Amino acid sequence: MTATGARLSREARREQLVTFGVELVAASTFEEVSIDDVAAAASISRGLLFHYFPTKRDFQVAVAERAAEDLLAATALDPDLPALDQLRTGIEAFLDHVAEGPAAYVSLVRGAGNGDAALRAVSERTRAALVDRILERLGVELAEVPAAVRLVVRAWVAAAEEMVVAWLADDTDVDRETVVKLLSDGLLLQVAPLLPPDVVAELFDP
Amino acid sequence: MTATGARLSREARREQLVTFGVELVAASTFEEVSIDDVAAAASISRGLLFHYFPTKRDFQVAVAERAAEDLLAATALDPDLPALDQLRTGIEAFLDHVAEGPAAYVSLVRGAGNGDAALRAVSERTRAALVDRILERLGVELAEVPAAVRLVVRAWVAAAEEMVVAWLADDTDVDRETVVKLLSDGLLLQVAPLLPPDVVAELFDP
Repeated sequence: MTATGARLSREARREQLVTFGVELVAASTFEEVSIDDVAAAASISRGLLFHYFPTKRDFQVAVAERAAEDLLAATALDPDLPALDQLRTGIEAFLDHVAEGPAAYVSLVRGAGNGDAALRAVSERTRAALVDRILERLGVELAEVPAAVRLVVRAWVAAAEEMVVAWLADDTDVDRETVVKLLSDGLLLQVAPLLPPDVVAELFDP
Repeated sequence: MTATGARLSREARREQLVTFGVELVAASTFEEVSIDDVAAAASISRGLLFHYFPTKRDFQVAVAERAAEDLLAATALDPDLPALDQLRTGIEAFLDHVAEGPAAYVSLVRGAGNGDAALRAVSERTRAALVDRILERLGVELAEVPAAVRLVVRAWVAAAEEMVVAWLADDTDVDRETVVKLLSDGLLLQVAPLLPPDVVAELFDP
């Protein structure tokens, strides 16, 4: 057996098809990518693609899940940095990630609210993972996070999406550094009054 | 001619159908309402509905536009109140309006990002109208609003949507008054550092 010409395992083929799907979505939007496009990219028949993914929706959910994993990986934080630097570099990484395909990002994130429960669940899990990550870096125990703080951080994630997408779409004289500062300051200004003083002190003077 | 039994004018019939559409959407989601449901509610045939709206999409856009007008009307501000009271009562009105049909609101607002340009345009115009309204109440001339302030207010509108929808969906011990205060404080904390000192002074001590 050699690698050349060897048949891909079922799992490897699924992975490959999802990778093609994510790449095609990044170049346009989630809705515009057809099963035929993906099959053509992978040089397989439409019928064979359905052998790996029983329905178009199964395939779309797999693509959305991979895109969500990519987002979480791209915005992973460096635990060795002070918390505020983690926040800033995390925002920069988020901005760069969305900039790779703003229309695709919008169609994945906002489209996920559009009726389909499985896609909406992917979007919800991703947001929840981002919120938990931020809460951990703020230095509060997840079990002890006041409900109001969680609500503010969740809303802030939505605000960050909107600001970055709007900034990328509009012809504006606001520079990248300012966007990062607006978002970073925005989060801190809102959560600091809601956190215990010792947590805030540790955050600003670790 | 009497009103009873008189045929509705084309425009009146369109208005009536859109009203049925908005009511049906409010009870479920934008995607779940079918043309058949609307025709049944209006006691007309599916074919006749298509006489007034050539395609399902035409009808959906008309429903989305009406829903957007309803939102803007429901959250209209009282110009006689001090700016901060207008902000607070505007947030309360927004919260009450979304509470009437959270799933419908999400499907209209987020679903509008999902590929269809006409629906997305309705959503964009509505957000822009909310942003302009807030900017005016902050006391800055629209022509002179710094781009960063516009970006922050736009992101805040997205944050307000997310917070209100999350708060309505989750079983949380955060009360309504706290949600209103989190949103109101959130906006002021973020825009105050970006506005001229005299505008901020006038806002807090009119």
